Amino acid sequence: VKKAKYELHYWPSIQGRGEFVRLALEAAGAEYADVARLPPSKGGGAAKLVALLGSAANAVAPFAPPVLRVGRLALAQTANILLYLGPRLNLVPDDEASRFTAHQHQLTIMDAVVEAHDTHHPISAGLYYEDQREPALARTRGFVDERIPKFLRYFERVVTDNSGKSKTPYSVGRSRSYVDLSLFQLVSGLKYAFPKAMKHYRRAIPKLEALSERVREEDRVAAYLESERRVPFNEDGIFRRYPELDLAPGRKTSRRKS
Amino acid sequence: VKKAKYELHYWPSIQGRGEFVRLALEAAGAEYADVARLPPSKGGGAAKLVALLGSAANAVAPFAPPVLRVGRLALAQTANILLYLGPRLNLVPDDEASRFTAHQHQLTIMDAVVEAHDTHHPISAGLYYEDQREPALARTRGFVDERIPKFLRYFERVVTDNSGKSKTPYSVGRSRSYVDLSLFQLVSGLKYAFPKAMKHYRRAIPKLEALSERVREEDRVAAYLESERRVPFNEDGIFRRYPELDLAPGRKTSRRKS
Repeated sequence: VKKAKYELHYWPSIQGRGEFVRLALEAAGAEYADVARLPPSKGGGAAKLVALLGSAANAVAPFAPPVLRVGRLALAQTANILLYLGPRLNLVPDDEASRFTAHQHQLTIMDAVVEAHDTHHPISAGLYYEDQREPALARTRGFVDERIPKFLRYFERVVTDNSGKSKTPYSVGRSRSYVDLSLFQLVSGLKYAFPKAMKHYRRAIPKLEALSERVREEDRVAAYLESERRVPFNEDGIFRRYPELDLAPGRKTSRRKS
Repeated sequence: VKKAKYELHYWPSIQGRGEFVRLALEAAGAEYADVARLPPSKGGGAAKLVALLGSAANAVAPFAPPVLRVGRLALAQTANILLYLGPRLNLVPDDEASRFTAHQHQLTIMDAVVEAHDTHHPISAGLYYEDQREPALARTRGFVDERIPKFLRYFERVVTDNSGKSKTPYSVGRSRSYVDLSLFQLVSGLKYAFPKAMKHYRRAIPKLEALSERVREEDRVAAYLESERRVPFNEDGIFRRYPELDLAPGRKTSRRKS
């Protein structure tokens, strides 16, 4: 059996953080295996992933997935994986300053992802959502009223400042980068989890909307999104659609010293 | 006035995320200015920092501080700044694999920092701690019982696997890196905020303890820690000592699907 050049190890039943890596590999047409999504006979399955993560055979098992294996190298941390893949898959400009800028943006996207996750798990990831519904509602109120607009407006400004009056805006440089792919995923996830808020805010982010739609329509991305390789959004992942957390923006919390 | 090669822009009254950058600059003996800590007559002060962060003069103002300025380059995101400084300040091994490993560890440290922050602000950073005390206690219970030991044991294993039987353990490679400095800061912060838990767990992390103490005793680090340049831990920062959150570990929450 020929081994794929890139091996992604991530939970097979959710998009989660692994999706940012899947999108990069797919958009670039890279030869990769999404290992845990293979049948158990080929090394797939969540149980084998758990075993891998805790394996003494790993020099150092990572703190958490996703993990990308490339030959003898094993990389963890989503943004770190994209930092590695960017130049190799032609998903980031060549100059060093742009690469640091791209990575900076990716880290800010990952910050937004943590906050999106914590709307439904503000107390502990080790407890059910159902056991933290009240604080989840409180956290979501602030996320919808303050954090979603702060992140979206920030990235709208990033894309605007980077692209000037171009009709094909990008977040970094003059071509589509892994940051654009990740912004598509962030915007898609927020729309899935918080449709009311995103209906309200989308008017304020025309560049980000255009960029996301263009990513969605790329040949390889479109084919991936239609395929069985794309795990659907669901209520085990980071972006969850709970009707009671789909708040309409409105009650602005006054800014206070924390 | 001669300009410093490195300009750090960060809140002047807390250690916060900026402290990971300060420690790297100090340990390397770099020529830098901690701009917001200068007197207002020299461009310092929190108000000027706020103005800088929102300034239209910035190509793109960052989402949040810390910001490192080096000539025309402005970098945000703590781990990204250390990724940049590492090779330039001789704070990371030369080979590419070690650099990705170091960055991976730094990102995991930053994840721990977010979780430490959210113990006192589980609902919103825009609200006072006093307005979220009940969920703060609940979140801290899980942090103390499950997350602190998970992070510490992980890094104990990192240091152990990297150092073998060496009496001078390091987290990456064969010399002291910015990751070691950051681990010192993480361990110090946890000890400040959660002395009961850390008294309980420190037996399980002998390598991490030895590494932290060695960092603390480095000439430049020791001089920095004694100086006025080091902001003391306080209850405006990430690591806060609230007696009611200084929980003794004990009641293990059963692991449940999230």
